[in-house]
Amino acid sequence: MDVYEKSLEKHYEWAGKMETKLRAPVETLDDLALCYTPGVSRACTVIAEDKSKVYELTNRHNTVAVVTDGTAVLGLGDIGPEAAMPVMEGKCALFKKFGNIDATPVCLCTKDTDEIVRTVAAISTSYGGINLEDISAPRCFEVERRLKELCDIPVFHDDQHGTAIVAGAALINALRVVGKDIKNIRVAINGAGSAGVAIAKFFKELGAGDVVCVCRKGVIVANEHYENAGHAELAGFTNKSGIRGTLADAIRGADVFLGVSVPNVVTGDMIKSMGKNPIVFPLANPVPEITRADALAAGAAVVGTGASNQPNQINNVLIFPGIFRGALDCRARDINGAMKRAAATALASLVSDKELCADYIIPNPLDKRVAGTVADAVARAARESGAARI
Amino acid sequence: MDVYEKSLEKHYEWAGKMETKLRAPVETLDDLALCYTPGVSRACTVIAEDKSKVYELTNRHNTVAVVTDGTAVLGLGDIGPEAAMPVMEGKCALFKKFGNIDATPVCLCTKDTDEIVRTVAAISTSYGGINLEDISAPRCFEVERRLKELCDIPVFHDDQHGTAIVAGAALINALRVVGKDIKNIRVAINGAGSAGVAIAKFFKELGAGDVVCVCRKGVIVANEHYENAGHAELAGFTNKSGIRGTLADAIRGADVFLGVSVPNVVTGDMIKSMGKNPIVFPLANPVPEITRADALAAGAAVVGTGASNQPNQINNVLIFPGIFRGALDCRARDINGAMKRAAATALASLVSDKELCADYIIPNPLDKRVAGTVADAVARAARESGAARI
Repeated sequence: MDVYEKSLEKHYEWAGKMETKLRAPVETLDDLALCYTPGVSRACTVIAEDKSKVYELTNRHNTVAVVTDGTAVLGLGDIGPEAAMPVMEGKCALFKKFGNIDATPVCLCTKDTDEIVRTVAAISTSYGGINLEDISAPRCFEVERRLKELCDIPVFHDDQHGTAIVAGAALINALRVVGKDIKNIRVAINGAGSAGVAIAKFFKELGAGDVVCVCRKGVIVANEHYENAGHAELAGFTNKSGIRGTLADAIRGADVFLGVSVPNVVTGDMIKSMGKNPIVFPLANPVPEITRADALAAGAAVVGTGASNQPNQINNVLIFPGIFRGALDCRARDINGAMKRAAATALASLVSDKELCADYIIPNPLDKRVAGTVADAVARAARESGAARI
Repeated sequence: MDVYEKSLEKHYEWAGKMETKLRAPVETLDDLALCYTPGVSRACTVIAEDKSKVYELTNRHNTVAVVTDGTAVLGLGDIGPEAAMPVMEGKCALFKKFGNIDATPVCLCTKDTDEIVRTVAAISTSYGGINLEDISAPRCFEVERRLKELCDIPVFHDDQHGTAIVAGAALINALRVVGKDIKNIRVAINGAGSAGVAIAKFFKELGAGDVVCVCRKGVIVANEHYENAGHAELAGFTNKSGIRGTLADAIRGADVFLGVSVPNVVTGDMIKSMGKNPIVFPLANPVPEITRADALAAGAAVVGTGASNQPNQINNVLIFPGIFRGALDCRARDINGAMKRAAATALASLVSDKELCADYIIPNPLDKRVAGTVADAVARAARESGAARI
């Protein structure tokens, strides 16, 4: 039985990967009077006088809503809110396991941007943070931007920023391996959806010399007009060398290739056309843009993929539990650029100079140090950048 | 330390009465591949082909959202969504303890009826049922009515129907004690908010001869014009004897008095003016319309209150866990009148002829038989009335 059929069997067995658990005892009538009426009214009046007390008297300090509209689920596309639920529950399971965060799935039966924004803003009072998940581009950009303005809690689209931060940590360490300075590199990115746009922006924030992005129609050219909001944004800050053409043109001479696109679009010859000691991150999953074996055979110096059975797995689970843990710990109003850069640097720092090599640039997803180290760095950055409440 | 200060201290200690718990293991990379990517995608595709499978492959079969806008919280009034959270968390704790239901608080930062309806409809895909809580009248009537039309899962305003069903069970058994037929009784209800309106309707559904309701301005008179939607509805089916005047006029000669209003508005003389063997349910909490001692001294045959330290506590916790348990067990589309009547009858039936007496008309809130008995009766009624999916 393959992993898919085994997983389906397990899903029937589990009939839900998460449940709720009592933290307060409810065994006697006295317990009832403390946990619920009439005693509970005192906690209510304390919060009514000072709203911030809700973080001390309820679980809001530890909750995240995992929100989707089911339009871009894994590689499956627009499968709807019901079919998205197993992924959202899985995400909630990872939040609990790795970040000790109490997350709850919210699958919306609307794809309308205004309606999504209104709905999430209206329920945001219930949570410590909002994790947006599997909302298709380009709507995801507007949804996140507007919600960040409306909500006074962190709003974080993991498909964008989680992926970008883990890839950023992998980039930092891959550059340590090949001895290149990030200021001088050119990165070619294939795929200009939510992850591609966010990675391009984040790599620039980390100091990358140039980033060239490729969408389905070819290389995105500076200052050309694009209908898609994400592509238009990319045109504003990428491709300063003015490359035109196809994926092959973008890759030629690049120091780094990163794919968040479709299987098997990169050839060994393309890898051979890259600069010296090329770094190759083909992240399409489960089938990458080029296999690790083919990339290495063509001369790649460092390869990272999305596969768990290969070295250097670039997996969001390395970031989202720690980044929300850190944001919740300091009651952050937002997850800002400084916090994201701190998360990438902290994750990269877990690989010591002694351990660092082409086959170990990023910690294992089960490495128990990760979430705490990322959380501490994120909370520190939040406090330094003014995003923290405590 | 009184119950309020003790409860506050406990709320600081608990820092949240509920948390999440993993049901699926996430210990190894193999576990990750089954619980999350890539394996999880198989469960998604199964649901995409048949939406009903979401009830088998995720926890949706066992979840309820406890939704409020914080406008009518306990006796505290409009204290806002943050201050409502301790009550909603407490409710979720009772859902778990008594119904083994995984409930989650949703506190909305909007009081706009349209916005509440849109928001709850948009998130309804995530849950097996919606429990509306502490939404002020008369908006609560419209919110519930519209959501019942929009959603294909049960929507239940507990302040209305939970209270009405428990009071209905208490009425059934009190009538057994005094030997009166429900067809021949007249009930006087003081308080025409969400609970009062729902109780009046439910008592009529149970067969009560007449119900006379009293709002702040006096007796609600048949066919007069009322601005308040709830009062207007009451005017349509109550007070067939055409009583006018005040609370005292409504009580005079009545067989049953039920209060869901304010403390100390009923006198011993009013009880003395009632019919033979009067049944008195002064439910204002923590201070009732008349104390149990004063009601008994004035000749009440049966008294039930909201207090946990007195006989015959009329407590919603006797109903909402069982009614949602039953509705979830048969994947009901709705909680209809037949299911509510079955719940009241089942609850009443737990008091045997041998046990029945003036001081024992309703089971104790901690009676372990209650939720299961109510759930079975509710699921059966759902199947018989066509509300059940399985």
